[in-house]
Amino acid sequence: MIVIMRPRTPQQEIDKLTDALTSRGVEVNPVIGKDLIILGLVGDTSKIDPTWIEANRNVERVMHVAEPFKKANRMFHPDPTVVKAGGREIGGKKITMMAGPCSVESEEQICGIAEQVKEMGADFLRGGAFKPRTSPYAFQGLKYDGLRLLKEARAKTGLPIVTEIMSPYDIELFAEDVDVIQVGARNMQNFELLKELGHTHKPILLKRGLSATIEEWLMSAEYIMAGGNENIILCERGIRTFETYTRNTLDLSAIPAVKKLSHLPVVVDPSHASGKWWMVDPLAKAAVAVGTDGLIIEVHNDPANALCDGQQSIRPSVYGELVKELRAIARAVGREL
Amino acid sequence: MIVIMRPRTPQQEIDKLTDALTSRGVEVNPVIGKDLIILGLVGDTSKIDPTWIEANRNVERVMHVAEPFKKANRMFHPDPTVVKAGGREIGGKKITMMAGPCSVESEEQICGIAEQVKEMGADFLRGGAFKPRTSPYAFQGLKYDGLRLLKEARAKTGLPIVTEIMSPYDIELFAEDVDVIQVGARNMQNFELLKELGHTHKPILLKRGLSATIEEWLMSAEYIMAGGNENIILCERGIRTFETYTRNTLDLSAIPAVKKLSHLPVVVDPSHASGKWWMVDPLAKAAVAVGTDGLIIEVHNDPANALCDGQQSIRPSVYGELVKELRAIARAVGREL
Amino acid sequence: MIVIMRPRTPQQEIDKLTDALTSRGVEVNPVIGKDLIILGLVGDTSKIDPTWIEANRNVERVMHVAEPFKKANRMFHPDPTVVKAGGREIGGKKITMMAGPCSVESEEQICGIAEQVKEMGADFLRGGAFKPRTSPYAFQGLKYDGLRLLKEARAKTGLPIVTEIMSPYDIELFAEDVDVIQVGARNMQNFELLKELGHTHKPILLKRGLSATIEEWLMSAEYIMAGGNENIILCERGIRTFETYTRNTLDLSAIPAVKKLSHLPVVVDPSHASGKWWMVDPLAKAAVAVGTDGLIIEVHNDPANALCDGQQSIRPSVYGELVKELRAIARAVGREL
Amino acid sequence: MIVIMRPRTPQQEIDKLTDALTSRGVEVNPVIGKDLIILGLVGDTSKIDPTWIEANRNVERVMHVAEPFKKANRMFHPDPTVVKAGGREIGGKKITMMAGPCSVESEEQICGIAEQVKEMGADFLRGGAFKPRTSPYAFQGLKYDGLRLLKEARAKTGLPIVTEIMSPYDIELFAEDVDVIQVGARNMQNFELLKELGHTHKPILLKRGLSATIEEWLMSAEYIMAGGNENIILCERGIRTFETYTRNTLDLSAIPAVKKLSHLPVVVDPSHASGKWWMVDPLAKAAVAVGTDGLIIEVHNDPANALCDGQQSIRPSVYGELVKELRAIARAVGREL
Repeated sequence: MIVIMRPRTPQQEIDKLTDALTSRGVEVNPVIGKDLIILGLVGDTSKIDPTWIEANRNVERVMHVAEPFKKANRMFHPDPTVVKAGGREIGGKKITMMAGPCSVESEEQICGIAEQVKEMGADFLRGGAFKPRTSPYAFQGLKYDGLRLLKEARAKTGLPIVTEIMSPYDIELFAEDVDVIQVGARNMQNFELLKELGHTHKPILLKRGLSATIEEWLMSAEYIMAGGNENIILCERGIRTFETYTRNTLDLSAIPAVKKLSHLPVVVDPSHASGKWWMVDPLAKAAVAVGTDGLIIEVHNDPANALCDGQQSIRPSVYGELVKELRAIARAVGREL
Repeated sequence: MIVIMRPRTPQQEIDKLTDALTSRGVEVNPVIGKDLIILGLVGDTSKIDPTWIEANRNVERVMHVAEPFKKANRMFHPDPTVVKAGGREIGGKKITMMAGPCSVESEEQICGIAEQVKEMGADFLRGGAFKPRTSPYAFQGLKYDGLRLLKEARAKTGLPIVTEIMSPYDIELFAEDVDVIQVGARNMQNFELLKELGHTHKPILLKRGLSATIEEWLMSAEYIMAGGNENIILCERGIRTFETYTRNTLDLSAIPAVKKLSHLPVVVDPSHASGKWWMVDPLAKAAVAVGTDGLIIEVHNDPANALCDGQQSIRPSVYGELVKELRAIARAVGREL
Repeated sequence: MIVIMRPRTPQQEIDKLTDALTSRGVEVNPVIGKDLIILGLVGDTSKIDPTWIEANRNVERVMHVAEPFKKANRMFHPDPTVVKAGGREIGGKKITMMAGPCSVESEEQICGIAEQVKEMGADFLRGGAFKPRTSPYAFQGLKYDGLRLLKEARAKTGLPIVTEIMSPYDIELFAEDVDVIQVGARNMQNFELLKELGHTHKPILLKRGLSATIEEWLMSAEYIMAGGNENIILCERGIRTFETYTRNTLDLSAIPAVKKLSHLPVVVDPSHASGKWWMVDPLAKAAVAVGTDGLIIEVHNDPANALCDGQQSIRPSVYGELVKELRAIARAVGREL
Repeated sequence: MIVIMRPRTPQQEIDKLTDALTSRGVEVNPVIGKDLIILGLVGDTSKIDPTWIEANRNVERVMHVAEPFKKANRMFHPDPTVVKAGGREIGGKKITMMAGPCSVESEEQICGIAEQVKEMGADFLRGGAFKPRTSPYAFQGLKYDGLRLLKEARAKTGLPIVTEIMSPYDIELFAEDVDVIQVGARNMQNFELLKELGHTHKPILLKRGLSATIEEWLMSAEYIMAGGNENIILCERGIRTFETYTRNTLDLSAIPAVKKLSHLPVVVDPSHASGKWWMVDPLAKAAVAVGTDGLIIEVHNDPANALCDGQQSIRPSVYGELVKELRAIARAVGREL
């Protein structure tokens, strides 16, 4: 951590702050020039709240040097983490394919899609039982019935299931029934939920918030890991920018960035990123080329009548073609799929 | 709602979609030109999910015309709502002043500050008991002890209290103990929490999410209102943009926008918006000039030793001076303070 | 400037970089801890290109400490600059009022509006002769005829004129004919234009680019100042964010920020910021309250038939009412208007 | 174009606007419901300035339906444009490789790099002679000497050259000497420059502005095309967002979007997008997978001593390896390289 002091801060004020910092267990190295006074802090700065230092009226700014996350940090854990879920591995050589409808609608629908995507090469079945919707008047999911139907689809196909949790009340149930618990973008900083998920041992798919920096996203992973659960799969699903042609802007640079900063696996959701079914194909290909560990794609047998997000869903046959083409790209970058 | 069809869509496809829409209870008015086919939907479109229409492969785009919120909409409720809390009114001629520390730290601290800000003209005491922090290693608040201390401060000063809720588990307790329940920016789309707050009758201070559009913010208010609780106070606290000099960018245009779109009162938090104590003064003045119904300002008796956000807190004496200057601006725009 | 080295960089690589930096005239102060190696650079770092240091494969990041602008920097020029133009002063106690139509349309129009806004208290007449339009098919202004009409309006009313330059070919003409030369948001980083304007002595109104940071904006001012022309008036006119309700998001925090970082005067354009005529009133009031040195407002005698930007123009009578109300706010913050 | 009227607008006001629109040559189709009045405009709306309609105080909003660009629009030109430059084709099956240093530094440097990248498979040599720099104190390029050296490198290697123009004064010279004239991101809306380039017949590489929407970018292409020059190559180079880990956020969704909206070829610049040399490899691969028509990559023989942007440059040997790996991805998506 580096503390920039205001120019011409009196020496005694520098000394006071130095003492306060030293008493908190860090070593203070001053660098003093004309028009420039900085204090370089060395040691365990993770316990020092930077806003406390900034509150000192002689301090101009505080700059982080080391990343504030520890358990998620690649520096202290150089090997990539491979998360195990439902007998599959996420984060190894094989690119993990998660597919299924935006929301579970009926037994026929979810079991039908599950069988089809399994045949096309999917490793996991995704499907929403609890749906976060911007409008209180929109379809909110089949809820517990949806969860039950997902379990049926798993029983029939053997595909492990990924589904979103919205309330801490449901954690026990999800921990028992679900293979990967998804935390949606809107809940990425629902810290109470994160903390409680940290006490389970279930793999968590943590979506990046709409306006979350990569650092904040990793700090949310850290929340879960700090509780003891290190089975985190990150998921890039587009960020909010000024561009409105696509629903969100898929930030594919985030994949190599996360790989450098963290040992956690990271997957890409091209369906939510673009909000357009015809963009899923090129964005999925780009995601594999850039180094993703997996893809989570919305597949629906009848997009035009889907209860939710049909505009970004592709049909199983289209998915099947896509998977074949992705295989060639995966090979070209030294991966399998 | 307006549906833009792809150019050269066959007539039978237009007819099919028209029938599907008509059967959902809306009237369809086609406007057909060369290179342009639009369907104007008239009637109650609030139950139609636009993504369902967009899922039709002949549809280019769907555009909203009417705002998707109803209970929060000024069109159906022209008079401004005045929310009553702790014997005060928010949204009337008087500008409501909420003040207090970022977090409750001790009895001496919170009671001392409460007495000082009361004397300086504050109407409400704010103070965090449960603190949402980006890092799991940062101070998370005194929690239930903090709540108890807030009640003590209220008992001593008579100031009603505003404090943030983070978990649905605490709703019952907050509904009993707190005068205004704050929903933080990171929980603005924690829909489970919003729904449950809709079943209480407590005034809710709903902060705008970091990257929430004005429409999404009002839709979150609609979530609470749909449950039956119409006591909502909106709070603009800065949005996330590319500019990093300030912590967030205070969007003061949002105040007249909200006033036009909705009947709900709206207050401004200049402390979180800028993250800089020396910006609180000019931004508070601008907020009053632009038409805010209230100000929520961080005040701490010892900012340099605050456990949280001291860099954006001002001292009680500075607050007192500010209040005096704000009064002149309030008068200039036909308000009281 | 602070250089963060990659962890575990060999000492000899640190030494090599240190030598290279020292030979460029700066003093290098190392701060070395476990997992952290930083070099604090002291001295005149303004000539060192940070990307050159970042190109060193052992360097993780380079952080600025001092602001990269010098002539525009308040640290080296504590007193505020007052720019003189057409017999008026911008940046003193009086808030400068610039008003007029988006574009000059005819002699009757521009002279009529000039007379009306003068009567209402305007200090300068604004009006576009050359118009930057997103579409090549939109009205591009009356060009040299527009300039001639502006001069006529000045001759009749005595109001000095502010108008936008778009091409370096016109600098000589503008320097002769115009009182304040406006550089539009889209040209804020048209460095060739800035450099040439640096060789005139005319006051320049430099609008902030749509996605320019405050630092980049001041660096553009520095381009002009580096050429010898220090008569710069900055103009905040809204930045581009994810919010689409307003055309841009007016960043009023930028006003106190600029005042702290620089000695240059700064004015606000509420018309372009919001793109909505009914928002001009509250935003103008907020701008005065936050500390602006001036306001540039679009006024048109017949907005519904304006050739450009009628949707954000107000009538002279509305302007007159606004000016009166602004006076009370100006007084409340210790200014005149 | 669709005009949304304010609710309860009197019929006579609707009639007045309808007459005004009809007299401008468009057909007006009203869609009238309770709480909703819209006018659907059919015909050639490209000459109608939407801000003129918005200036009508009874108008709530105006929505575009058709894209405002014509010559760049794929609807009116379904076949992809192949731009010919220096004996190469851009926009065909082959992916075009442009490579070279950020700036031309010396004869040895530019000729050496040219020979190396040619051998590695580059089709064009890029190199800056005139450099747009944020700071007036940074290296601004060798200017006319740089141009001369680029020509020497072309003479030696046969590689056509791409370089950036900054001033309209240089157009004649560039039109004679350069094979592809680059317009930088900061000049994307320097309309005077665009208009003049429209009068040449040279291929133009038009970079997307830092905060330009896809529509605005295509409108800038339209400016050049409206003048008669249809040889436009678009270039995505990252947009400005809240994320600061990368210099910009590469918007790869823009590639399929541009392909759908326009017939113009589009290339990707992964070097400027990320600002980090180690991200060039994965982002270049993703760009090929997503469907780019070309790649423009910064290659320097000695990045650590480059005069500019060394932190994002890769060595020729690294470039050679990358090209080989890109070939496999190109094949997988049905392209050559």
